[in-house]
Amino acid sequence: MQVIVTGGAGFLGARLIQTLLEEGQRIEGETITRVTSIDLAPCPLDDPRVESWVGDVADKALIERAMGDDTLAVCHLAAVVSSQAEADFELGMRVNLEATQALLDACRAHPRRLRFLFASSLAVFGPGLEQPVPEVVGPQPRSSYGAQKAIGELLVNDYSRRGFIDGRVCRLPTIVARPGKPNQAASSFASSIIREPLAGQRAVCPVDPDLPLWLSSPRAMVGNLRHALQLDGDALGEWRTLNLPGITVTVTQLLDALERQAGAETRALVDFEPDAAIDKIVASWPGGLDIERPLSLGFQADADVDTVIHAYREDYLNT
Amino acid sequence: MQVIVTGGAGFLGARLIQTLLEEGQRIEGETITRVTSIDLAPCPLDDPRVESWVGDVADKALIERAMGDDTLAVCHLAAVVSSQAEADFELGMRVNLEATQALLDACRAHPRRLRFLFASSLAVFGPGLEQPVPEVVGPQPRSSYGAQKAIGELLVNDYSRRGFIDGRVCRLPTIVARPGKPNQAASSFASSIIREPLAGQRAVCPVDPDLPLWLSSPRAMVGNLRHALQLDGDALGEWRTLNLPGITVTVTQLLDALERQAGAETRALVDFEPDAAIDKIVASWPGGLDIERPLSLGFQADADVDTVIHAYREDYLNT
Ligand SMILES: NC(=O)c1ccc[n+]([C@@H]2O[C@H](COP(=O)([O-])OP(=O)(O)OC[C@H]3O[C@@H](n4cnc5c(N)ncnc54)[C@H](O)[C@@H]3O)[C@@H](O)[C@H]2O)c1
Ligand SMILES: NC(=O)c1ccc[n+]([C@@H]2O[C@H](COP(=O)([O-])OP(=O)(O)OC[C@H]3O[C@@H](n4cnc5c(N)ncnc54)[C@H](O)[C@@H]3O)[C@@H](O)[C@H]2O)c1
Repeated sequence: MQVIVTGGAGFLGARLIQTLLEEGQRIEGETITRVTSIDLAPCPLDDPRVESWVGDVADKALIERAMGDDTLAVCHLAAVVSSQAEADFELGMRVNLEATQALLDACRAHPRRLRFLFASSLAVFGPGLEQPVPEVVGPQPRSSYGAQKAIGELLVNDYSRRGFIDGRVCRLPTIVARPGKPNQAASSFASSIIREPLAGQRAVCPVDPDLPLWLSSPRAMVGNLRHALQLDGDALGEWRTLNLPGITVTVTQLLDALERQAGAETRALVDFEPDAAIDKIVASWPGGLDIERPLSLGFQADADVDTVIHAYREDYLNT
Repeated sequence: MQVIVTGGAGFLGARLIQTLLEEGQRIEGETITRVTSIDLAPCPLDDPRVESWVGDVADKALIERAMGDDTLAVCHLAAVVSSQAEADFELGMRVNLEATQALLDACRAHPRRLRFLFASSLAVFGPGLEQPVPEVVGPQPRSSYGAQKAIGELLVNDYSRRGFIDGRVCRLPTIVARPGKPNQAASSFASSIIREPLAGQRAVCPVDPDLPLWLSSPRAMVGNLRHALQLDGDALGEWRTLNLPGITVTVTQLLDALERQAGAETRALVDFEPDAAIDKIVASWPGGLDIERPLSLGFQADADVDTVIHAYREDYLNT
């Protein structure tokens, strides 16, 4: 039986696919034997169980063809990220909102009540909140990306409530550190200030060093996404939105940990150059969320900031 | 200069139009000289300053034609109400969501940054909340109507933040008592149990007599909607969603007030016949919201439940 992963060529999508194809992974008692990636880019994984469909997730005909009878679940990770959705409003609306609607409607038309995992973000929250942010606090996004994610959350919940899908909304923390090149997320710097110095290159931090970030390693996050997909719907209850675990770390604490693991010269490769546009978005996000319920449901947080940096070195630098 | 009112043939829409055309009403210093109603039905008002366009609010061409250069503001009240949106999912999505998007895009294309008033509802909230519900608490709707309104709220806020419009989101309490026939809102009974007995007819209450309702008279509400439209945007701040004032009243308290004004025989015309479908929706709504900020902004609540019933008798029965 197959799982569809949109954004399967992306950073988290490709890692999620690998995790879903580990030995013996199941959903509702059925073994996952293959995964179909739908992405503008080809999925980089070299595995015969992965089928890569290159195309637009807003393309209804493509989605319908991908969604065969043996589909168990759809993990919707394809997105236009924060700074890009802020710069190009129409693109963000089309990919983050319209494509999500099209995908939900395709799932609704499927004979099986499909599991549907939606990757939302802490960017749905606005500034000035009590921290850690209690679960009842609502989205007041200060970016179009956050607004589009918050709308997706409501759709997934309503489609679930009506029984069209069996949805799970995961609000992701900022994932640190992502490998490769900087992307167009406003939070991209949080990875750059670890990744670039570890590669002996300079990096720029555009926000205040005291800014608290809500972080997770990709390793912990991908485990949590898989858990969200495999968890029984009844355990989640009626409202399907979850604040996934993270840890609260200031930029300074992140760099302190970098220094502990790679020395003062490495840390000295980070320059502070305030960027108002990025700061305005990132500083509107809370630095910590109440995660008591997700933890009780078996979701996991990284042990500490050193674990986060260590995970990056282990997963991507083999050190 | 004109104001457009969608749903201008409806209960609140028609009353809002009358209020906007009272002597000397202004928006941003400009006098309101005419109002255009866009509704599936003709606007019942007999006033040369009211133009009635009969058509679908989701019809982009119609909207564009209505939106002349002299438009100051759009009040978006047209909607498929709660029980109907629950019964007909596609219709609710089309009118409550797609039409709202189309309208927002038409406003965005207008040379002037238009004021945009969106009639949302307490139906955006879910069950089990601390009451009165604090302002930071988010929508967890248990109806498609509530989900569609909550999505509209997010869109109006994001379009405002980007400067495409100058938006105002008003979350309305249940309005009691509306005149005329019962409608397809789940809360329709709250008007029926006042209106029908006062007309000497029997009425059915489908919910628990102890259920607290969050109510406003149409009179107070229409004043509040006009105030929301006329208020300076800076006073509202960045986040444009307001919980409009209401009063917390149980069904029993409402009937006690009816009895005080019309006698025990009138009250005895109300039968209790539980209806699970209606109860499920209405009981998920909170019975009271924190309205400290709206009150400080000049919005007004009815003095008490007797005022609410008295307003109905005065406005609609001339007693
Ligand atoms: N990484 C983070 O810090 C973080 C934090 C919060 C939320 N998220 C969310 O998690 C998800 C995955 O994030 P990521 O870091 O892997 O992002 P990513 O940018 O690495 O991957 C996104 C993928 O979506 C694809 N995509 C974009 N538009 C598409 C379209 N129209 N059709 C098909 N594919 C399209 C891209 O090609 C890319 O491969 C996203 O939904 C993102 O919003 C990520
Ligand atoms: N009355 C309440 O208790 C209450 C409570 C909360 C929110 N609201 C909201 O206030 C607004 C007005 O409510 P109301 O009580 O006056 O409702 P109403 O039903 O009396 O009026 C709604 C109007 O919208 C029109 N309409 C519906 N679909 C349309 C379409 N596709 N194109 C054009 N017009 C269309 C209808 O013809 C009707 O005249 C609605 O948005 C409603 O959701 C009302």
